[in-house]
Amino acid sequence: MAQKPSIPKGTRDFNAEEVAKRSYIMETIKTQFQLYGFQPIETPSFENSETLMGKYGDEGDRLIFKILNSGEFMKKFSEFFILRTVRFFEANLIRLIKKGNLPKSDILHDDQKMSEFYQEYFLKNILKNEYNLNVEIFDSNYNFFIYKSYLDNNDIIKYLFNNVEDDFQVFEGEKKKKALSFAESIFAKWIILNTSKFSSLISEKALRYDLTVPFARYVVQHQNEIEFPFKRYQIQPVWRADRPQKGRFREFYQCDADVVGSKSLFQEVEFVQLYDAVFTALDLKGVTIKINNRKILSGIAEVIGAQDKLIDFTVALDKLDKIGEEKVKEEMRSKDISEEGIAKLQPLFELKGDFGDQVASLKSILGTSEIGLKGIEELEFINTAISNLKLKTAQLQLDVTLARGLNYYTGAIFEVSAPEGVKMGSIGGGGRYDDLTSIFGKPDTSGVGISFGLDRIYLVLDELNLFPATITESTKVLFINFGDKEAMACLQAVSKLRTNGVKAELYPDSAKMKKQMTHADRRNIPYVVLVGEEEINAGLFTLKNMKSGEQDKLSFEAMLEVLK
Amino acid sequence: MAQKPSIPKGTRDFNAEEVAKRSYIMETIKTQFQLYGFQPIETPSFENSETLMGKYGDEGDRLIFKILNSGEFMKKFSEFFILRTVRFFEANLIRLIKKGNLPKSDILHDDQKMSEFYQEYFLKNILKNEYNLNVEIFDSNYNFFIYKSYLDNNDIIKYLFNNVEDDFQVFEGEKKKKALSFAESIFAKWIILNTSKFSSLISEKALRYDLTVPFARYVVQHQNEIEFPFKRYQIQPVWRADRPQKGRFREFYQCDADVVGSKSLFQEVEFVQLYDAVFTALDLKGVTIKINNRKILSGIAEVIGAQDKLIDFTVALDKLDKIGEEKVKEEMRSKDISEEGIAKLQPLFELKGDFGDQVASLKSILGTSEIGLKGIEELEFINTAISNLKLKTAQLQLDVTLARGLNYYTGAIFEVSAPEGVKMGSIGGGGRYDDLTSIFGKPDTSGVGISFGLDRIYLVLDELNLFPATITESTKVLFINFGDKEAMACLQAVSKLRTNGVKAELYPDSAKMKKQMTHADRRNIPYVVLVGEEEINAGLFTLKNMKSGEQDKLSFEAMLEVLK
Repeated sequence: MAQKPSIPKGTRDFNAEEVAKRSYIMETIKTQFQLYGFQPIETPSFENSETLMGKYGDEGDRLIFKILNSGEFMKKFSEFFILRTVRFFEANLIRLIKKGNLPKSDILHDDQKMSEFYQEYFLKNILKNEYNLNVEIFDSNYNFFIYKSYLDNNDIIKYLFNNVEDDFQVFEGEKKKKALSFAESIFAKWIILNTSKFSSLISEKALRYDLTVPFARYVVQHQNEIEFPFKRYQIQPVWRADRPQKGRFREFYQCDADVVGSKSLFQEVEFVQLYDAVFTALDLKGVTIKINNRKILSGIAEVIGAQDKLIDFTVALDKLDKIGEEKVKEEMRSKDISEEGIAKLQPLFELKGDFGDQVASLKSILGTSEIGLKGIEELEFINTAISNLKLKTAQLQLDVTLARGLNYYTGAIFEVSAPEGVKMGSIGGGGRYDDLTSIFGKPDTSGVGISFGLDRIYLVLDELNLFPATITESTKVLFINFGDKEAMACLQAVSKLRTNGVKAELYPDSAKMKKQMTHADRRNIPYVVLVGEEEINAGLFTLKNMKSGEQDKLSFEAMLEVLK
Repeated sequence: MAQKPSIPKGTRDFNAEEVAKRSYIMETIKTQFQLYGFQPIETPSFENSETLMGKYGDEGDRLIFKILNSGEFMKKFSEFFILRTVRFFEANLIRLIKKGNLPKSDILHDDQKMSEFYQEYFLKNILKNEYNLNVEIFDSNYNFFIYKSYLDNNDIIKYLFNNVEDDFQVFEGEKKKKALSFAESIFAKWIILNTSKFSSLISEKALRYDLTVPFARYVVQHQNEIEFPFKRYQIQPVWRADRPQKGRFREFYQCDADVVGSKSLFQEVEFVQLYDAVFTALDLKGVTIKINNRKILSGIAEVIGAQDKLIDFTVALDKLDKIGEEKVKEEMRSKDISEEGIAKLQPLFELKGDFGDQVASLKSILGTSEIGLKGIEELEFINTAISNLKLKTAQLQLDVTLARGLNYYTGAIFEVSAPEGVKMGSIGGGGRYDDLTSIFGKPDTSGVGISFGLDRIYLVLDELNLFPATITESTKVLFINFGDKEAMACLQAVSKLRTNGVKAELYPDSAKMKKQMTHADRRNIPYVVLVGEEEINAGLFTLKNMKSGEQDKLSFEAMLEVLK
C-alpha cells in the first residue's frame, strides 16, 4: 500500500547544504555564547502541560502543541468516569434509602421510580440541593443533562472521583444497563460541552513553545545545584501551532542566552556586545541594535495619565513605523487616551538626532516621573558603556517606540534589525524581566536575555551571499570502482586518507566509468582517483582534478598532500 | 500560584557538563560520518501520522507519541459529526416520504411516529436494509445504538459525511432538539466504543519514533533531487512512550548513517570500519562488532524445515547467550519446530574457534541451501576485506545467534558490544534492508545502515573515565568587580580577551570580594583578575591562579599569553 509521502504543513526537511548552513550559524552563535561565559543546558522537548499552559496568554495556550496520552489512558478514563458516575448514583441512592429520605424504599424494584430517581430526584434534590451544583435538565426525554457548574470548575469530576464509596454495587441486570447508559450520556454530554477541558484531560504533556519558560522551570527545579548569577545558553527547537506562512514555521530553532540572579546593568551592556560579536562573526555588518526601556514607556504613560492603559499605549506606539503618527494617535484616542495626553506626546513623534538629543527630548516629556527617569538613567548607563567599549560592526540605536509583544519585560528591551536594504523583520530580540521564576515558586529572581532568530538570519545571509563556501564542502575525493580487486586496493588508500582527515569515498559498485564520473560531478566532488592494475603494480594513484581535467600519477603521500 | 516544577517521566534536563559530554560524542561521530562521505539531513520532529503508523508493528503504534489537533478542531469535528447525523436523518426521512415509502406522511407532526422512525424504521429499515450496515439497538429506552459496523470500518463516517444533501432542514423546535440529542448520543457512544479511532481522528501528527522511517519517507519524497547511491547521516532525537527505566528514556537521540541505492558489500565493509573509527576516536578500545546475516538464518530455518517459523526460530536462537542451549531448544519445541530439525542444529550450539572454523561448521549445517550459502559468501567477503584492511581497536566477530528485533533486515546484521568488563547492552546496531522505501511507493531500493546508541556510549565512557577533561572546560577567567569605574576598565580587557578567543567574564555586581572568589571557585574558573585603581593607573592586571594561589601584575599582552 504505497503512500504519497509528505510532511506536516509548517515543517521542513533539510538537505545537506541546508544543515551545513544552519549548523554554521548555530556554531558561530554558540562560540560567542561560550566566549561570553554562557553555559549550555538542554531541556526536554515536551514539558508537563501545567508548566506551559497559562504562561503565554490565551492565544499562546491555543498555539501550544499538546501530546495525546496513550489510547489506553483515554479508554480507561472513559470507563472510570462512567463507572464512577454509576457508583455515585448508587451511593446516593443507598444513603437516602438508609436515611429514610427517599419516598419509597422499594425504588430499586420499580422501573418507574428508578427513572424518576435519575431524572428528578437525583438531579434536582441531590445534585442541586445537597451538593449545590447548578444542574439543568436538558431534555428529559433523552435523559441528558448538563452539569452546568462544570463549565466553570471541576467540581463534578471531583465529586464523582472522591465522594464515592466503592462498596456499593446495587444495580444489576437491566438496571445496571440503564445506569450505565445514563452515565454514558453524562460523559458524552460532558465531552461535547467541554472539548478543551477534555483535551487537557487526555493530554498531560505539551511541546516546548519557547525556551524561556522551560528555562525558568529549570532554574527553579535545579536552584540548589545552580551557582548564581547563572548564565545559560540554549539552542533547541520549539513548536507552535501557528498558521504557517513565509518565514514562519511550526517547528523552528531558538538560540537564547540569559542571565538570572543579578540586576547589574553590565549584563545589558554585555548583551549589546554579544549581538555585535555574533553578527560580526557572521560577517553581517551594519545591523542595528535597537534599545528601549519599559520604565520609560511606563513613565510616559504615567505622565499622560494612561498608567492603566500601558499595554494599549505601547501597542499603539509600537506601530509608529508602520502606520505613521496620525494613525497611532487615532488608535490611542480609540483606547480612550485623552487628547491632552496625546498632545503631551508630541515631542515623541518628533524625536530626532543622536542618542543624547533623543534622551533630552524624552526627559522633557517625562518631567518628574520617577520611573521614567530611572529608565533614562539605565539607558544612559548602557549607552555610555557601549560608547566606551565600541562596537565592531553594529550600531546601537534608541527606539522609544520599541515595546515587543512580551509583557514580561520590566527594564531594557532589545531588538535587532538587519542591515539597511535587506527586507526582513527583526533578527533578534530580548530584554530584562524581573520576576519570571515566581510562577514556579521562586520570587525576586531578575533575569535578562536575548534571542537570535535562526531562520531569518539564514535568509539574510543567503540573500547577501555571506555563507562561506567552505562550510558546504563535503567529500573531497571519490575513488572509481573498477572491480573488487581494484576496489580493495582503493579502500586501503581511502582508509589512510580518512585517518589523515580527508573526506574520501569509494564508489560502491563497479558501474560504468561514465556513471561514476557523473556521480562525482553531480555531487561537486573536486577530485577522483583511478586505480587500475597498472597503478596497483606501481603503487601509484591517478588523481584527476574534476574542474581542470588535469590528472597525475602520484604516490600516496603526494596525493595526500594535494587533498589535505 | 506557585507550581512545584518537574518534567515528564522518562525525559531529562541536561546541565552544562552533560551537554558538553553529549556534544563531544555526537561531534566525534559526526566527524567520522563526514570522513566516510555521509551527508547530513534533518527531518521534522513530527510526521503525518500515516507516515509512522503501521511501520513498527502494533507495539510500536502504541508507543508512538501522538499530537493532538487543536481544541478547535475537536469542537468543530463533534459539531460537524452531530450536525451531519441530523442531516442524514432528515435526508432519509424526506427521501422516504417523497417515495411514499414511509407509513404515514404526517410523521413530521407526530411525536410517536417520529420516535418510531428513529428507533425502528431508521435503524432497522434504512441503515440495516438499505445501507447494509449491521446495527443493533442497544437500549431503546435511552435511544442509544451501536453502529456495529464501525467497529470494523469507517463506513458510517463516510455515509454521514458524504451521502447527505445539505439542503434539508426539516427539523425545527422540539423536533430539532430531539434529533440533535439523538445524534449526540450516537457520537458519545461512538467515542466510547472507539477510543483509539477517536484518537487518530483528533490527532493527525506524531512524534518521530526512529530515524529510519522518516529517512525512507525523505528518500521517496525527494528522490528527484537525490543523487544515488545516497549516503546520509542523521543525528536527532526520537520519542517513544515506553515504560521508562534505567538507561531507557522517552526522549533520546539516535545517530544513524545509511546508504541507499546500492547492493555493494563494500558498504558493509565500510560500516565495520566506521564503527571501528568512531570507537577508536572516542578512545573506547576493544569493542566487539558482531556480525550475522539474515540469509544464514533463513538457510538454517530452511534446512530444519522451519521456513514458516523463521521469526520463532530466530527469536529463540537470539536468547542463547541469556538462557542457554537447553532452554532455547525447549522454546523451539514449544513453537512446533521438530525434534529432527533441532537435532540438525547441534553444530550451531557448539560453534567454536575463529571466523573460518565457524564458517566451516555453518556450511556443514547449511548443506546445499542456496540462500544459506549466499549468506556465508557475503559474510566471507566482508571478513576477508576487513582482515586485509585491519581494524584499529575493535574486533569483528561472527555471531550466528544475532537476529535483532527488526524484521526488515535482509542481509548483514550488526551489533556492537562494549569492551569486556563493562556491563552494558549493545551500543550500536544495524544491517541491510532491501526494500524499506517500497512502503512509500519506491520499490527495489536497497539500503544498509548503522546506528550509535548515544546514551549507552555516554554511560560507558563515563564509567571508564574516557571523557577528555578539556571538553567540560568553560570560563577561563573571571574579572572581579570592584565598582562601576573598575568594572568598565575590566570590560575593556574582557572584550579584548574574547576577541582573542579567551572565555572571559566580568562578575556583574560589585559584591563582596569573598562572594566573587567563591563564585569563581564553585564554577571551577581557573583564573581571576583583580583591577583596582592602582592597576588602572598602571595599565596592569593582577592575575591570580585559583589553584596555586599565585598572583602576578601583568600587562594585557602578558595576561593574554597565560590565558590563551
